[in-house]
Amino acid sequence: MSEPTVPTDPAGSAQPLDAHVLTRTAEHLADRYAGVFSPDLVERMVFESYATLARTARVHTHLAPLAGHFAADRLAALAHTRATTTDGPPDTALPQVLFVDEEDTGRTQIAAALLTHYAHGMVVARSAGFSAGEAVDPRVVDVLVTRGLDIERVYPKPVTDDVVRAADRVITFGTSDGVRVYPGTVQEHWAVGGLLNASTPERVQEVVDAIDTRVRALHEQIRVHPPARLRR
Amino acid sequence: MSEPTVPTDPAGSAQPLDAHVLTRTAEHLADRYAGVFSPDLVERMVFESYATLARTARVHTHLAPLAGHFAADRLAALAHTRATTTDGPPDTALPQVLFVDEEDTGRTQIAAALLTHYAHGMVVARSAGFSAGEAVDPRVVDVLVTRGLDIERVYPKPVTDDVVRAADRVITFGTSDGVRVYPGTVQEHWAVGGLLNASTPERVQEVVDAIDTRVRALHEQIRVHPPARLRR
Repeated sequence: MSEPTVPTDPAGSAQPLDAHVLTRTAEHLADRYAGVFSPDLVERMVFESYATLARTARVHTHLAPLAGHFAADRLAALAHTRATTTDGPPDTALPQVLFVDEEDTGRTQIAAALLTHYAHGMVVARSAGFSAGEAVDPRVVDVLVTRGLDIERVYPKPVTDDVVRAADRVITFGTSDGVRVYPGTVQEHWAVGGLLNASTPERVQEVVDAIDTRVRALHEQIRVHPPARLRR
Repeated sequence: MSEPTVPTDPAGSAQPLDAHVLTRTAEHLADRYAGVFSPDLVERMVFESYATLARTARVHTHLAPLAGHFAADRLAALAHTRATTTDGPPDTALPQVLFVDEEDTGRTQIAAALLTHYAHGMVVARSAGFSAGEAVDPRVVDVLVTRGLDIERVYPKPVTDDVVRAADRVITFGTSDGVRVYPGTVQEHWAVGGLLNASTPERVQEVVDAIDTRVRALHEQIRVHPPARLRR
């Protein structure tokens, strides 16, 4: 039998420091959402966002600030849904688009970044993956940097209920099997080749161009025909 | 460009029915935890537990009731932590053990079922995986059924912050890289062969026997030396 072991560092490598950052993040977000969400919901959102990212992330450095951003984005999605399904005015009248793929490491990141870029902040674009993925494809980072797009918030995120629920449109790549949208959400599938099969820079550029064309068309559609919710 | 598509069934296959079950589950759990957790936290726990299982589950039938169970278990873990970290008396004075593996489909399921069995309900044993896994290994189901153990609640669960935080002991199989326990939790690694490499029934039995031996030793340790928290 194995003897009971008492590790010299039972708290693990970075946990205490991360826990401190997460606690402060939760306090900050609880203040921001005072009267909207209970502090215990906000605290759970922050710590579970951290645990969710930690399950799949290859690099654990900077995980606490990323978890804070992930939690803040999810709370924003939740606040959006709550505001549009109760009597109160929407907290934001912006269309919400979610891009979903097997992993949130390639096509979804490109699409969300391009839509954010073209919409000049007038559309909320999110990305997510059924299995999050370990890290964003370095070629995607190159593409975004080359086009002058922000990569600060480019990290793989799993599909969560809050962002699916907030979405006016869900765009799927790869399979759409795993995503079940809510009533009122328009779902669309984009048959664009994956980056895994793009073995040359030219093939990568073809994928980016195909997504770019569709994103611009989508942006035009949303501009001309905003979601029914926003036409009320 | 692709035309805007409006699916004939924008709600997907099972969503409306599942959403109904989940809403009722949330109401039920909110009643149970009235005064402990806010209804919005409970509602989030139920819907996010569903989304989390849906990301990886191979079979989507019965996902709503499983999500209800998963959410109830996570709320129990959270209530346990809260009771032991504030002035109030612990809601339960039972030791809490968490088994973690790459996937929650094999060794963890066997270990949790055996510990529950030996402890006669006097230990809370949970299992989880870094990537949950699609389905529990059928050979594990066979082992449990053969030993007369309950398989009703045998399904793969991902590692969540609430169950890690509630654990007095975390036992890891495979790698322990991804799990960071909280201060006060004893972490232990069990070097037991995986089921993936067990190509014959005899090899499977060896894995089960190795786990069985360790679980019985663990149970004895816990019985003689309960967690420090419970000795106060």
